[in-house]
Amino acid sequence: MADTNGKAEHLIGVDLGGTKILAGVFSPQLKCLGRTKVSTKPQRGHDEVIERIARCVKDAVDECDMDLKQIKGVGVGAPGAVDPESGRVIFAPNLAWEDVPLKKELEKELDLPVFVENDCHVCTLGVHDVELNRKPRHMIGIFLGTGIGGGLIIDGKLYSGFNQTGGEVGHMVLEIAGPKCSCGNRGCFEALSSRASIFRKIQNAVKDGEQTVLTEMLGKDLENLRSGDLRKAIKRGDKFVERVVEEAAEYTGIAVANLINICNPEVVVLGGGLIEALADEMMAIIIETAKDYAMPGTFKGTEIIATKLADDAGIFGAAVLARMRTRKSGDAD
Amino acid sequence: MADTNGKAEHLIGVDLGGTKILAGVFSPQLKCLGRTKVSTKPQRGHDEVIERIARCVKDAVDECDMDLKQIKGVGVGAPGAVDPESGRVIFAPNLAWEDVPLKKELEKELDLPVFVENDCHVCTLGVHDVELNRKPRHMIGIFLGTGIGGGLIIDGKLYSGFNQTGGEVGHMVLEIAGPKCSCGNRGCFEALSSRASIFRKIQNAVKDGEQTVLTEMLGKDLENLRSGDLRKAIKRGDKFVERVVEEAAEYTGIAVANLINICNPEVVVLGGGLIEALADEMMAIIIETAKDYAMPGTFKGTEIIATKLADDAGIFGAAVLARMRTRKSGDAD
Repeated sequence: MADTNGKAEHLIGVDLGGTKILAGVFSPQLKCLGRTKVSTKPQRGHDEVIERIARCVKDAVDECDMDLKQIKGVGVGAPGAVDPESGRVIFAPNLAWEDVPLKKELEKELDLPVFVENDCHVCTLGVHDVELNRKPRHMIGIFLGTGIGGGLIIDGKLYSGFNQTGGEVGHMVLEIAGPKCSCGNRGCFEALSSRASIFRKIQNAVKDGEQTVLTEMLGKDLENLRSGDLRKAIKRGDKFVERVVEEAAEYTGIAVANLINICNPEVVVLGGGLIEALADEMMAIIIETAKDYAMPGTFKGTEIIATKLADDAGIFGAAVLARMRTRKSGDAD
Repeated sequence: MADTNGKAEHLIGVDLGGTKILAGVFSPQLKCLGRTKVSTKPQRGHDEVIERIARCVKDAVDECDMDLKQIKGVGVGAPGAVDPESGRVIFAPNLAWEDVPLKKELEKELDLPVFVENDCHVCTLGVHDVELNRKPRHMIGIFLGTGIGGGLIIDGKLYSGFNQTGGEVGHMVLEIAGPKCSCGNRGCFEALSSRASIFRKIQNAVKDGEQTVLTEMLGKDLENLRSGDLRKAIKRGDKFVERVVEEAAEYTGIAVANLINICNPEVVVLGGGLIEALADEMMAIIIETAKDYAMPGTFKGTEIIATKLADDAGIFGAAVLARMRTRKSGDAD
């Protein structure tokens, strides 16, 4: 497959998640012209998921009264370890994928050039390019959802590292004797501040008799707990939930300080479902804690912000990826 | 001062420490032709320290039967926060310096172009260029001495970051409720694995009645304790000292894993006085622990090594800095 589709100029950005697939159609200037969403249904196997991605892309193009012939390239952010050269998804636990040739298969389905990257790298690209107009030379993106991931912009470019996995901030150990993480270690940032770790903490406390309005809202098992419920509980004056969210924000602030001390970025951007739902409750604490823990000379002038792209960071970033890669092999920059 | 000295080709590398100043004379191919050492005597004030640096440089040149006219430029690694553009030492607690115009003053003394960088950045440059022949595209240097510092090589170049302080790995928090650090936080890598933290741990334990051969060797106050004494105590079968050193190595392994997860380098190099004295006791534990804690896909193929440059990393790196900066403004690369 050629790396660019003739004189076509439009781009597709796809955000492939464990639950849903989002696809957006973008102008060459990265204006979003339309978008569609389908559920992922990973239990049906990767062939069917790839068909669903293709369908989601075709539907988005059709919604815009356009034709696939007008699309120059497709970018995809995938949740897990990705080899950006081959476009293979090496390992994606949320999809139960191991070594799936996503680029090759999706190119077959769409007859368009496809480019694949890790979803947090893609979101970092999206924020850097679309929201911040590529201004920060050095930037870190941190995304708090079910898990925690990140991405680094170094000298204005996405930094991937030796094994293309740079920015794996979720498994930075912050508390050696801390709670068990899904990776097998203890005290990872992800085991302290992810949505999953917050939910686990709340559910365990409720089992131990803790009182919270969440059980009134959702029943004793807290089965369909979502980030937004935490915000509602805090607004209703639930001091227990407030404390748990504050603690997660404090740990996040320490993680941000560590990253500032190590990488000395100009901007740290926070995003993901947890931050989207709880920015008002968490951001001030994150910033204050990071300032306390970072070296003053290193912290000076550093901005810590929450992305405004929210759930769209993935499709915007994937469109940036598609533009970057089709440019690289085709047009002049 | 012009950034290069006519047709002169030789280089000087200076390692400015809190206790001693080392200066080396280098050929254009970075062969060390001779070196001298003087004590720093920071208590006499920065003017006198700068005079001592100049004297050390002149003595080294004289030792090589050369003349300052044959020197193209002087690189200096300084212990603290440095502004590499202006060559000012912003803050160096070991020297009790605040905002000292080292470049300007030393250029006045020597009538040669001078370039100043943080000492750990300089050591990282030295290892990358001289020991590893610039092969790793992405590398991290970690130096364990009285404190802990580091440097990053990204895309083959020294990475400084937004405030020129990138690689401040010593103040990465590993254990939130851990021991107090000189920076005011708790549980920093430096508070767990530096020579100062190891010595403090041993001295406190001895006060609490711990038995160790170190008191036989040095007296009850352990006043002149050095890293080499720890090695001797372990060789004499001291299980307590062995355990303390092992713990410091385990913490170092976790710090290395965090850095691998975040920055995904190809090579991690460890150096500094503590590693120089205790490489045999610490390196295997550091590597094993880092492997346990890093993500397998990110760790794959990563090398973790101890530098062989030992105490010379500083003067070699400073010569690399001088060559780099005089090239930049003078000759073609």
